Amino acid sequence: MISVEEARGRILDSLAPCGAETVPLAEGWNRVLARPVTARLTQPPADVSAMDGYAVRAADAVEGATLAVTGAAPAGHPFRGEVGPGEAVRIFTGAPVPEGADAILLQEDATAGGNGVRVNETVRPDRWIRRAGMDFRAGDTLVEAGRRLSARDIGLAAAGNHAWLPVHRAPRIAILATGDEIVLPGEPLPAGGIVSSNAHMLAALVRAAGGVPVVLPIAGDNHEAIGAAAEAARRCEMLVTTGGASVGEHDLVQSALAPHGFTLDFWKIAMRPGKPLIWGRLDGTPVLGLPGNPVSALVCGVLFLWPALMKLSGLPAAPLPLRMARLGADLPENDRREEYMRARLETDAEGRSVVVPATRQDSAMLRVLAGADALLQRPPHAPALQAGATVPVVHLADLGI
Amino acid sequence: MISVEEARGRILDSLAPCGAETVPLAEGWNRVLARPVTARLTQPPADVSAMDGYAVRAADAVEGATLAVTGAAPAGHPFRGEVGPGEAVRIFTGAPVPEGADAILLQEDATAGGNGVRVNETVRPDRWIRRAGMDFRAGDTLVEAGRRLSARDIGLAAAGNHAWLPVHRAPRIAILATGDEIVLPGEPLPAGGIVSSNAHMLAALVRAAGGVPVVLPIAGDNHEAIGAAAEAARRCEMLVTTGGASVGEHDLVQSALAPHGFTLDFWKIAMRPGKPLIWGRLDGTPVLGLPGNPVSALVCGVLFLWPALMKLSGLPAAPLPLRMARLGADLPENDRREEYMRARLETDAEGRSVVVPATRQDSAMLRVLAGADALLQRPPHAPALQAGATVPVVHLADLGI
Repeated sequence: MISVEEARGRILDSLAPCGAETVPLAEGWNRVLARPVTARLTQPPADVSAMDGYAVRAADAVEGATLAVTGAAPAGHPFRGEVGPGEAVRIFTGAPVPEGADAILLQEDATAGGNGVRVNETVRPDRWIRRAGMDFRAGDTLVEAGRRLSARDIGLAAAGNHAWLPVHRAPRIAILATGDEIVLPGEPLPAGGIVSSNAHMLAALVRAAGGVPVVLPIAGDNHEAIGAAAEAARRCEMLVTTGGASVGEHDLVQSALAPHGFTLDFWKIAMRPGKPLIWGRLDGTPVLGLPGNPVSALVCGVLFLWPALMKLSGLPAAPLPLRMARLGADLPENDRREEYMRARLETDAEGRSVVVPATRQDSAMLRVLAGADALLQRPPHAPALQAGATVPVVHLADLGI
Repeated sequence: MISVEEARGRILDSLAPCGAETVPLAEGWNRVLARPVTARLTQPPADVSAMDGYAVRAADAVEGATLAVTGAAPAGHPFRGEVGPGEAVRIFTGAPVPEGADAILLQEDATAGGNGVRVNETVRPDRWIRRAGMDFRAGDTLVEAGRRLSARDIGLAAAGNHAWLPVHRAPRIAILATGDEIVLPGEPLPAGGIVSSNAHMLAALVRAAGGVPVVLPIAGDNHEAIGAAAEAARRCEMLVTTGGASVGEHDLVQSALAPHGFTLDFWKIAMRPGKPLIWGRLDGTPVLGLPGNPVSALVCGVLFLWPALMKLSGLPAAPLPLRMARLGADLPENDRREEYMRARLETDAEGRSVVVPATRQDSAMLRVLAGADALLQRPPHAPALQAGATVPVVHLADLGI
């Protein structure tokens, strides 16, 4: 058996990010940028007014003066002339400041009348002018490669005049549920049959991580069905199998894949829930074999599949996103297996995050898992803890899982 | 001018959640459940084995005894007979426990040989049996209405034998950028032109909130173009306008919409950035008019459009998701406008979250906004604060924005 950390390291070391594709700006949200986005223009392109008012020479615009209004500069319609001594040009937010002017008289500090405007408050030089390039200059890097694009990044790439974005392809993940007893939801259910929950739960996890799930037809517990699915998975970035508990699931999956070129890296991890886990390679396609138990499958999915998807998506390697919380109940010491307890998050009277482990940790209880907010991490051989201790937790909602 | 809180309250009060539609289970992730999902079966359906081993009568399975193996029960292939005195049935995880048996002898505590199995460790009654209904019973509510479906919820709904899910329709949000000077990214850019960044930034915000953006063609600063777009928006749950700064943007949008049945609720909010904001109704369609300035548009989008999308999506009303952080710099007192400062989040040596406001808060700086992690909320008339004070922040990454 190997540790969770070593298993995750070996999985991540063997994966490379998907290559790039071009997508329209409008489809770039939540994708991972493959090359930096640089500004194609300078913003603002010229010195512009930050407010509605009058472009003036500050030296002339003293309280009580009246200036001659010689034109107007709405945004999008620059004023071509010059502001001479004693003159003002009506200007609106975002419009280029005309030649000659060095400040803006706010409209609320002015009284317009006839062809002139009266200055009600003395104007300081430079006031209310945004200088060319204040936001960015042509050639500046606006968004770094390897970043998952936020709504703000999309706005910034647009402002930099990009209609297309180079992003990493979304990883396609083939998902194979195996087991003679497994039936799709809503299909006729024979005696002893179990409704398949893993495949679509894992497909949703893949979606939450920005990947594209390909749910293969369920394979019975036989070499032909599993082998056929393995062939179908060769065009995907990874094959994830789950289930097949009836005849010693991992032996079956491994022996069924062997004739198709499968080589094993490791298959037992010192953790709870979910000890048996296959990691190997089907020629070029990585294979992750998850336990058939839904709770174990999901927890292993969070610990191994989610980080794998981050790496395939082009994000920089990152540790499991743990946050600290106060323990809301006493815990006994842990054995040599790293444990991930299903837990609820609460907030105490002082506003601190408190994590309360579910009273029933049986790995068959999917309902407890679905009702949990977090996984409470217990390292191997962790000592007994009393309520109030600080412990690391994975916030499942943070991951969309 | 009204407060941010009052504005948000008036917006939310006037919106109703979208009605329901049926989607396949596989498309249910991240949608909001419109009706509860109840279990259509009991899980486990019968008493089942929690481990691989032998179904036995505990009274017989004392250390040193040898039991006669009379059959096998893999998952999916129940054993139909009874376990008699001195007998054992080979059993695998998830398989129903045969009649007569009341405990499981673990395979690691047994030695198989010939037609018998030797008990190496005395078995306690009830051990390693999961009772029928331990996870859930037919008729139990598995997922409550009004919940955004996680990967785990999808797994639980599948286990409850649902192939289809009733979810709220995703709100369709028409987005209209106005302004003579606005040009789509990559299009020919005239002198004084500005590349449109708001529409696609807001479209990404809508996507992040689970809505469907409909980006309308840019309308110039004239009544015909804006009116035509308003007509196009009538099949959407909301019309969001942005920009048109050249001639007093909100007057223009309001006067252009008036002949199409527009009625105004309010249009000035005591906040920074983003004071001018329209909220009204075009017959049945709510209209949110955002400032043309990209930073103001995004901040107002977070404060007003995001909560509106949550309500339209069917989620229960929730306050703005604020978290507390330690202030990383001194701040002067605030004026009467509620402020949302662009800020970065850091972690101090003790692992605490520290928020550092950007040194330049000019609302024209989209790059500062894109590089921010959070908005630091400053209530109206907030006193001066020193570094180390506790302040509320909106984590933009939490919102996918």
